[in-house]
Amino acid sequence: MLEALKQQVLEANLALPKYGLVTFTWGNVSGIDREKGLFVIKPSGVPYEDLKAEDLVVVDLEGRVVEGDLRPSSDTPTHMVLYREFPEIGGVVHTHSPWGTSWAQAGRPLPASGTTHADYFYGEIPVTRPMTKVEIEGAYELETGNVIVERFRELGLDPIQVPGILVHAHAPFVWGSDALNAVHNAVVLEEVAKITARQLQLNPDSKPMDQTLLDRHFLRKHGANAYYGQK
Amino acid sequence: MLEALKQQVLEANLALPKYGLVTFTWGNVSGIDREKGLFVIKPSGVPYEDLKAEDLVVVDLEGRVVEGDLRPSSDTPTHMVLYREFPEIGGVVHTHSPWGTSWAQAGRPLPASGTTHADYFYGEIPVTRPMTKVEIEGAYELETGNVIVERFRELGLDPIQVPGILVHAHAPFVWGSDALNAVHNAVVLEEVAKITARQLQLNPDSKPMDQTLLDRHFLRKHGANAYYGQK
Amino acid sequence: MLEALKQQVLEANLALPKYGLVTFTWGNVSGIDREKGLFVIKPSGVPYEDLKAEDLVVVDLEGRVVEGDLRPSSDTPTHMVLYREFPEIGGVVHTHSPWGTSWAQAGRPLPASGTTHADYFYGEIPVTRPMTKVEIEGAYELETGNVIVERFRELGLDPIQVPGILVHAHAPFVWGSDALNAVHNAVVLEEVAKITARQLQLNPDSKPMDQTLLDRHFLRKHGANAYYGQK
Amino acid sequence: MLEALKQQVLEANLALPKYGLVTFTWGNVSGIDREKGLFVIKPSGVPYEDLKAEDLVVVDLEGRVVEGDLRPSSDTPTHMVLYREFPEIGGVVHTHSPWGTSWAQAGRPLPASGTTHADYFYGEIPVTRPMTKVEIEGAYELETGNVIVERFRELGLDPIQVPGILVHAHAPFVWGSDALNAVHNAVVLEEVAKITARQLQLNPDSKPMDQTLLDRHFLRKHGANAYYGQK
Repeated sequence: MLEALKQQVLEANLALPKYGLVTFTWGNVSGIDREKGLFVIKPSGVPYEDLKAEDLVVVDLEGRVVEGDLRPSSDTPTHMVLYREFPEIGGVVHTHSPWGTSWAQAGRPLPASGTTHADYFYGEIPVTRPMTKVEIEGAYELETGNVIVERFRELGLDPIQVPGILVHAHAPFVWGSDALNAVHNAVVLEEVAKITARQLQLNPDSKPMDQTLLDRHFLRKHGANAYYGQK
Repeated sequence: MLEALKQQVLEANLALPKYGLVTFTWGNVSGIDREKGLFVIKPSGVPYEDLKAEDLVVVDLEGRVVEGDLRPSSDTPTHMVLYREFPEIGGVVHTHSPWGTSWAQAGRPLPASGTTHADYFYGEIPVTRPMTKVEIEGAYELETGNVIVERFRELGLDPIQVPGILVHAHAPFVWGSDALNAVHNAVVLEEVAKITARQLQLNPDSKPMDQTLLDRHFLRKHGANAYYGQK
Repeated sequence: MLEALKQQVLEANLALPKYGLVTFTWGNVSGIDREKGLFVIKPSGVPYEDLKAEDLVVVDLEGRVVEGDLRPSSDTPTHMVLYREFPEIGGVVHTHSPWGTSWAQAGRPLPASGTTHADYFYGEIPVTRPMTKVEIEGAYELETGNVIVERFRELGLDPIQVPGILVHAHAPFVWGSDALNAVHNAVVLEEVAKITARQLQLNPDSKPMDQTLLDRHFLRKHGANAYYGQK
Repeated sequence: MLEALKQQVLEANLALPKYGLVTFTWGNVSGIDREKGLFVIKPSGVPYEDLKAEDLVVVDLEGRVVEGDLRPSSDTPTHMVLYREFPEIGGVVHTHSPWGTSWAQAGRPLPASGTTHADYFYGEIPVTRPMTKVEIEGAYELETGNVIVERFRELGLDPIQVPGILVHAHAPFVWGSDALNAVHNAVVLEEVAKITARQLQLNPDSKPMDQTLLDRHFLRKHGANAYYGQK
């Protein structure tokens, strides 16, 4: 079942080592079929070089495995919460990409500081609050999804306009219109995490970018009036 | 038309990923035929690995597409302004190369601090002023060219002696005698942006280099008395 | 003798350049056969690209060469002390991997600051005290092993839960259940050394991670209740 | 003439891009035949990928070209001074390797801070004084050699024990027993320049390493009592 989706999710998982986002098996991508209400996700702990489409696990929005011989990623409940709460998204990726993880460990939101950021993220990339003892000792991966959603609600953010977050003391979760687009956004997050960290070293008093410039660049690539690319 | 120029501009665009200056399609190179008053530029949003000479777009100095089925780079008006205002230059390149972009986001000019810099840039690499709301909401890419030219005029700089600039909160624009030379200078800018950022971390009180040493190194490679290389 | 062990130790040594942990011959891996009380180690100064299984040296727990035509790594006495004092471990690796070495030179323990660290190291990675003149001028490599063990005893650490240390003004020593697992842990140490150094630049006042989160992540991958991976 | 030496110098030059020490043609290696009093050096501005043994230039210790159709490296007079003043050395290399160049631009000597450094450089790697206007405007490359030698004399350093220096606002010059050994030492300088820069970020108050540890590591690899490697 879901063979085309599995192919895309496989390709998206294999893009993680290609773009230098992962060490060992530290990352996983999923993609959803919204009509069927099922998502396809990487199995837990399987090296990318051994991964095949038939190894991918099909899960429903209650977190039940519908197809697959292997155990799904331990982060599956986080993906599930994101799919349930952000109905516009079609793919989710989690990695410990090093620059993004440094910001997550620093507990510091990643400010929109240049047009590279503005081309993809419409404002600051937020960081979650630290999770509580009860959340960590309870359904930890599900609660990770809950604190992500909580932060987006608090800030009134649209998950399509800001397609990612830094989980405090952990690492980024990023999403997109589908699995490949989610990985694309994860590459961007890592790149701007690097560029902006070095900017702050060169100029610790830097302010976030001008709102007009942020609007111009985001809307040049997104929405009805976009004029970047071939369509 | 302009087949030889297209081959060179193609080669120059393909040099961007080779030298690590671009992620995805975040860069574009153009080259001009001064006799015909036409320049050849990368189409917008096309991946480098798919790019062919016949995909390149021919544009005149009013910004009109003269040949080509694809839409030219969204940065075409910036290239056009540079060709119009700097008649000595033959190629232009724009990338979001990470170290140069960090300096651009920091809003800090890149000081001439060593002979690596002095071999190619005859003094500090300037940064533009922030663009105004009117400029950003107007003909943005054309105005980007205008603020570059404005800064060169204010500082009395010769674009052949300082073949590049940092656009504030954006990224570098670099040029040269032709498309390949422009990319060569873009690689140098990225390298000295890296070296000098680390220098300032090791010694935050560093002063720019001695003027005599700057003269010696720049003039050893450029102008009538150059003695580097085989001619 | 010990042909299967030699194959594994060969593979583990070849993983050092593959993962970017070594320059030239700056690293060595060993693995032990606990029943026979013999360990297999890289010969001194032999380039990885020339290394063959039959070049590896078999050494007993008194440090005597039992088999092999080449001289064993000059760090052999350090490996020997670790095998004698930490009976639970099966492999040892020493490299001058650059980020870990920066922390060792800084004389600063590497705090547990995120889940990447917590997945493999159950708390801070310690640094040894500086060695004394007598130790350095005496049986230096053996004394290096002794100061490692001294630090683990002082801190009451379990070498299975914290599989590595930074030797002051020197570099990391890392271990694991076997030679390959030791190299795996050395890759993790280098990665968290990098991530946490950058975190501290972004937020110099960062505190170590929450103990509950450390517990959750370490125990999710280790011990009776582990639920990561396929078993 | 000098065919074997040319082969070695060719190989040493090709090692520069292999080890990531150069961008474009920013580096050159030479090697000397002490009996004949002639050295072989890279021609100026020739890309490494095009370089052949017959392109190398043979120069005498007065700086006269004895054989070769191409112009020798513009840095040839610096190499010549080093061969004349340091009779123990057999090869010289100059690069703008990025970390070493950052230290040179910072005008800061590179302190011996760990065993990686101590294995190859017996103490701090010095930096020259800034050159005077007269020196820069005169026989600049020859004067560069002179300020290197001046610094070694002032500090009473043995060029075999400290096989390199940082030229102020310029970049490293490194040497060794022959051309290949010089490149080996240049790789080490770049690696310790990187490791120690990051150490100082982690601990700005770091002191240089203990003298006893420096002695032990340097003498373990060099001199009559060396015991590293297979001889």
